[in-house]
Amino acid sequence: MPLKLYYDLMSQPSRTLFILLKKVQCDFEPKYVDLRKAEHYSEEFTNQINRMQRVPVIDHNGFILSESVAIVRYLAQEKMIPESLYPSDSKLRARVDEYLEWQHVGLRWHCAMYFRVKSLEPALLGRQTDEKTLAGYKRRMLRALDDFDQKWLGIRNQFVVGDTLTVADLFAATELEQPRMAGYDPKEHYPAIATWAKKVQEHFNPYYDEAHVTVNKIATKQIQMAKL
Amino acid sequence: MPLKLYYDLMSQPSRTLFILLKKVQCDFEPKYVDLRKAEHYSEEFTNQINRMQRVPVIDHNGFILSESVAIVRYLAQEKMIPESLYPSDSKLRARVDEYLEWQHVGLRWHCAMYFRVKSLEPALLGRQTDEKTLAGYKRRMLRALDDFDQKWLGIRNQFVVGDTLTVADLFAATELEQPRMAGYDPKEHYPAIATWAKKVQEHFNPYYDEAHVTVNKIATKQIQMAKL
Repeated sequence: MPLKLYYDLMSQPSRTLFILLKKVQCDFEPKYVDLRKAEHYSEEFTNQINRMQRVPVIDHNGFILSESVAIVRYLAQEKMIPESLYPSDSKLRARVDEYLEWQHVGLRWHCAMYFRVKSLEPALLGRQTDEKTLAGYKRRMLRALDDFDQKWLGIRNQFVVGDTLTVADLFAATELEQPRMAGYDPKEHYPAIATWAKKVQEHFNPYYDEAHVTVNKIATKQIQMAKL
Repeated sequence: MPLKLYYDLMSQPSRTLFILLKKVQCDFEPKYVDLRKAEHYSEEFTNQINRMQRVPVIDHNGFILSESVAIVRYLAQEKMIPESLYPSDSKLRARVDEYLEWQHVGLRWHCAMYFRVKSLEPALLGRQTDEKTLAGYKRRMLRALDDFDQKWLGIRNQFVVGDTLTVADLFAATELEQPRMAGYDPKEHYPAIATWAKKVQEHFNPYYDEAHVTVNKIATKQIQMAKL
């Protein structure tokens, strides 16, 4: 098979690519890298796949590329992503790019860090993050969610960039699933996000749900634990 | 004039675009936004230029776009950036994109935050950041610099992406100037960075130096203060 995808569905951008490739009927070879077993730190992965020790990574006939946004652009250039999801028109594409560049520090970092300090590090290191530190991370995540809700969804129409669903929506939706594993579901607090997220999920189903099986399990556990 | 650039040379990506546009002989209209006077928070700027309240922003015949990396891509699409600086070949471009996507959280965030907590916030808020917090930010910046030094410059040849200077080098170089304003010059600690940075500076001069006049003044003051 010509395209290999190195991924773990615990990683948001891995889920984005997994869903995207399935949706566009790309017959890729899945290469699971178990982050919880630290397989991304193995010598083999580091030396042969990604020296940055992260997923996702693609191997396209020997061309190995990391960074999910760069991967989507490359696949679009190679005509593997349809025009509708990543437009080729200069101005339309620039609007999608504007979001994709903004989200790194504007949204992704804060959702990822909240999940990390609230759930991941305590589970891995066996110690709780202190309340004050955690409150800081939560505050910054909520500010990022406010921005996403008001300055992206709020000013536009149906989707992140205008009235058409693009890769920007998929990147955003998978990102907002992450804090659910730390007991915080943005959809419960932001009605516009809930409405929009449902449309993104439906567009990409059954692959969206397939990619979120483990995330959903962990999120359900969080809800049960909160009730105890 | 067809292209307006909203910028402040205290901002790294503003410097990148300022230098790039001058180097490619683009006769742009400079629109200075004084960050120190909080002009980016003004109602006019927020409502008409960038709701995210940041620079740089371009206005290209009425098409307003933020996010420096998205701007560079748009300008390349519009044939305003030469092929050599941002290649159109799918794989070469993907390598440049890979760096541009990595740097947001991989390098930029950490250099920017160190400058912010060490210099900017104490100056604006009139209080010093406590030593332990500052040490954490410095540690994360040094780890990012290690990555840049070893995993980008170290594995490649002369430049960030192979043997040809691209926009990736300019983005990286302007970023690494930022911690100098907090008294830390990466060039003094990483010989490979020093050698590379000189080549980038020379390639883009006189515009590189022109864009760094204020940065250099502040960095010099930091050195003098450290000697007291």
